[in-house]
Amino acid sequence: MSGTWLATLQTETPEDGWNLAVKLSRMGVKATQPSDEVRTRLRSVYAEDADSLIASSQVVAMNFQTVAAANNYWR
Amino acid sequence: MSGTWLATLQTETPEDGWNLAVKLSRMGVKATQPSDEVRTRLRSVYAEDADSLIASSQVVAMNFQTVAAANNYWR
Amino acid sequence: MSGTWLATLQTETPEDGWNLAVKLSRMGVKATQPSDEVRTRLRSVYAEDADSLIASSQVVAMNFQTVAAANNYWR
Amino acid sequence: MSGTWLATLQTETPEDGWNLAVKLSRMGVKATQPSDEVRTRLRSVYAEDADSLIASSQVVAMNFQTVAAANNYWR
Amino acid sequence: MSGTWLATLQTETPEDGWNLAVKLSRMGVKATQPSDEVRTRLRSVYAEDADSLIASSQVVAMNFQTVAAANNYWR
Amino acid sequence: MSGTWLATLQTETPEDGWNLAVKLSRMGVKATQPSDEVRTRLRSVYAEDADSLIASSQVVAMNFQTVAAANNYWR
Repeated sequence: MSGTWLATLQTETPEDGWNLAVKLSRMGVKATQPSDEVRTRLRSVYAEDADSLIASSQVVAMNFQTVAAANNYWR
Repeated sequence: MSGTWLATLQTETPEDGWNLAVKLSRMGVKATQPSDEVRTRLRSVYAEDADSLIASSQVVAMNFQTVAAANNYWR
Repeated sequence: MSGTWLATLQTETPEDGWNLAVKLSRMGVKATQPSDEVRTRLRSVYAEDADSLIASSQVVAMNFQTVAAANNYWR
Repeated sequence: MSGTWLATLQTETPEDGWNLAVKLSRMGVKATQPSDEVRTRLRSVYAEDADSLIASSQVVAMNFQTVAAANNYWR
Repeated sequence: MSGTWLATLQTETPEDGWNLAVKLSRMGVKATQPSDEVRTRLRSVYAEDADSLIASSQVVAMNFQTVAAANNYWR
Repeated sequence: MSGTWLATLQTETPEDGWNLAVKLSRMGVKATQPSDEVRTRLRSVYAEDADSLIASSQVVAMNFQTVAAANNYWR
């Protein structure tokens, strides 16, 4: 994790915020499994597993809560 | 994910907000499994699995927390 | 899901709010499995499964967080 | 669920609030499995299962978040 | 659970708050399994199970959210 | 857990906050399994398990919510 991957939680649009939440979710996996090769290999498996996908969606939802609050919900 | 699927978190009614939360939950799955074909196939399986359904409901609940806060709970 | 099942998050009492949270949890399941027949069949199974029941309770808890906040905790 | 089991989220002390959170967690299970007999039987099983106990603790934690916020953290 | 185990959510330091969150997580287990003997026996098993440990960490995280908010994040 | 591992929740940057959230997640595991040797051994297993990695990412997300709020989202 280089020193500049997360400079700010502010985004211009809700959709950019969503994409940041997806990125945070992946970085959360990377924190435990730093190998790109292993993560890519595992993804090909769990992308076909319904429960893994639902769990992934939950992580994105949780990170999106943070990003949305950081942006005052883009109001 | 095209650039305009999430223009705002504001909705006119709580029910529209709920529907947005359902959509966000599906987009969270799509972030990991972009193939419509695979997602449709998997859904036919997990829609018959109680634990998968409960987990899905939890993701919707989490996204609804975000959307409801974004709308100041439609007060 | 007809257009009027969720008109407001405001309830008169905490208990009404709890009941709304239970309803939201069920609607979250319905979003993925619209068939009343299938949901009724599945419920007869998971209502006997401790882990499913605990997971269900967690979804209610999450939705109750939202409803309680929407009502300023009925203070 | 009789009409008066949840009159308020306010409690005198943090510990009373904790006990209310435990009660809410059990009512969340009761919402899906209303039978006292079945719940008692299931509890004797999952009270010996580490993962079930951890999941139960998580539900209590979530409900305690709500109760604590409702009481302004007893500050 | 004696009447004085949770007198306040306020702590002097973030670390004390963390320790309180750990305590709350254990009390959440105790609410379902009051026997010290059984909990000790189960812990020796799940302390060797990665998924149980991750789930435990999640419960601590959730309780820490509550404690940190109660202390205005020790700002 | 020595007395000085968590002096503050405030960090200079969002990325430092993320790293603190990762640390908190690991300390949450350590609270149940204090042995460095056992945790290292278990990690080599669950770092190859997709569902464990997703669950780990969720714990980081939850702790990051706390840290981000503590820093007023670095706004």
